[in-house]
Amino acid sequence: MTRFNKKKQMIWTYENGKPQRRKDILATEEPMEILLRAGDKQQTVAITMRTPGNDYELAAGFLYNEGILQRRDEISGMTYCVDGNQQEYNSLRIQLKADSMPELKQLERHFFTNSACGVCGSAMLDDLSERNLPVIPAGPIVDVSLITSLPDKLRQSQDLFESTGGLHAAAIFDLDGNLLAVREDVGRHNALDKLIGWGLLNNQLPFHDKVLMVSGRASYELLQKAFVAGVPVFCAVSAPSSLAVQVAEKFGVTLIGFLRGARFNVYTGTQRIKAQAVSQISRFFE
Amino acid sequence: MTRFNKKKQMIWTYENGKPQRRKDILATEEPMEILLRAGDKQQTVAITMRTPGNDYELAAGFLYNEGILQRRDEISGMTYCVDGNQQEYNSLRIQLKADSMPELKQLERHFFTNSACGVCGSAMLDDLSERNLPVIPAGPIVDVSLITSLPDKLRQSQDLFESTGGLHAAAIFDLDGNLLAVREDVGRHNALDKLIGWGLLNNQLPFHDKVLMVSGRASYELLQKAFVAGVPVFCAVSAPSSLAVQVAEKFGVTLIGFLRGARFNVYTGTQRIKAQAVSQISRFFE
Repeated sequence: MTRFNKKKQMIWTYENGKPQRRKDILATEEPMEILLRAGDKQQTVAITMRTPGNDYELAAGFLYNEGILQRRDEISGMTYCVDGNQQEYNSLRIQLKADSMPELKQLERHFFTNSACGVCGSAMLDDLSERNLPVIPAGPIVDVSLITSLPDKLRQSQDLFESTGGLHAAAIFDLDGNLLAVREDVGRHNALDKLIGWGLLNNQLPFHDKVLMVSGRASYELLQKAFVAGVPVFCAVSAPSSLAVQVAEKFGVTLIGFLRGARFNVYTGTQRIKAQAVSQISRFFE
Repeated sequence: MTRFNKKKQMIWTYENGKPQRRKDILATEEPMEILLRAGDKQQTVAITMRTPGNDYELAAGFLYNEGILQRRDEISGMTYCVDGNQQEYNSLRIQLKADSMPELKQLERHFFTNSACGVCGSAMLDDLSERNLPVIPAGPIVDVSLITSLPDKLRQSQDLFESTGGLHAAAIFDLDGNLLAVREDVGRHNALDKLIGWGLLNNQLPFHDKVLMVSGRASYELLQKAFVAGVPVFCAVSAPSSLAVQVAEKFGVTLIGFLRGARFNVYTGTQRIKAQAVSQISRFFE
């Protein structure tokens, strides 16, 4: 964690009507510009509101999700811009080994219109299909006990959330339930981009034999990113949206929501969950 | 609420390892395109992932926040596009009375770069200053008891959240604590745009003598929208970000976070809060 990711602030706390002065810690929110350079061409590809920290991963994960980067070795260098101003930590430049700028049209694919006047969720799913991404494997099969062990592990690893109460998290686990990496951000999509960027920069992609967990709700955008990164099992503390369920269904991701204590909902891909009750019954008949 | 804002889904619920089949209700997430038309010119100004319902307000609130609309009577009509496809509820066209298209450059102002290589939060605040928006008045003074009464009222009014558990809400109250309007969405910025659009379409803007409450965290974007709509007191159930606090401080908004039960934090503008303890002391000396 960098020293930039939280800020101290004096506040008033009211309890039963009585104000008390005390120190508080805020999660930092600052814009970050992602610049892509190839040969002597340079272009801003995104500006996102994010919590500073793991910025290289954020940029790498963002570009991976957009289809601009597939492997770590396509990058020749990443650096903060320090062109004589004090915002040197808010602009990050990724230099590609390629001599020419990649096709950036897909950056607009999120929201393409499929007619003179019309956008819709199923068109977005069709568009995702057309990227011809690798299919998610049929496995793994995971125990219910592994799933229910994740929330405590996530919470224990969220040090910035502990101090600020203001951050989303995304974490990746192996099939023994070991936490491999956790990333935090004020923006839920950034937390996931950072985590996927960690995967790219550490040659851990695709996440085919991993389980992903996010701290909040499951939106279309998060499921789309998880699918691109090859995640077979996606867990969220809160509710998924309708379009998140559609992505999971169409692309074969197991989607778990409301994961709290010993309870969770499975929206899609229940064949990857090994129920304890079922295994007890099968033991009975063995 | 429209019939489009939720979807039924069969799911598996696991409790202590045992799966049970049951029906669940999901919050709908679908893209919506906002088209602006003036004279014979037409342009897409935004595409946002939203929960259907109150779409006219969403479009109006978005355009108000961007500085494209100031008053309801600048609109000559709003309609869903029905150009012979089935996505007629995902494209909304706003026809302006003006003959020529307004300056749309400010749509990019969120993320302008203040040098060849650099963006930062304080530059975003400077940019907001340069819009010369009306200042927030010094008042009102609100009782602690009014503030602490808001979370229950918000929750009781969130019918879609009750059934799906998956929505953000934004609500506006008068100074007697009466709920005037509440809007829900999978995107927190959309919930607030809908609420502000309600204000614009019902001639309730600016919200100078009102108190705003949102269900989640307070980000830069939410505080910026609230300031543009003239909100003097902004309450959030969860934490504000550093940049949200900076906006509130710079533009004179009272920012309350972690509003739960009889407890809350005041980050900025505490002079608008009338503490019970203080008023008791002053009574004692009268």
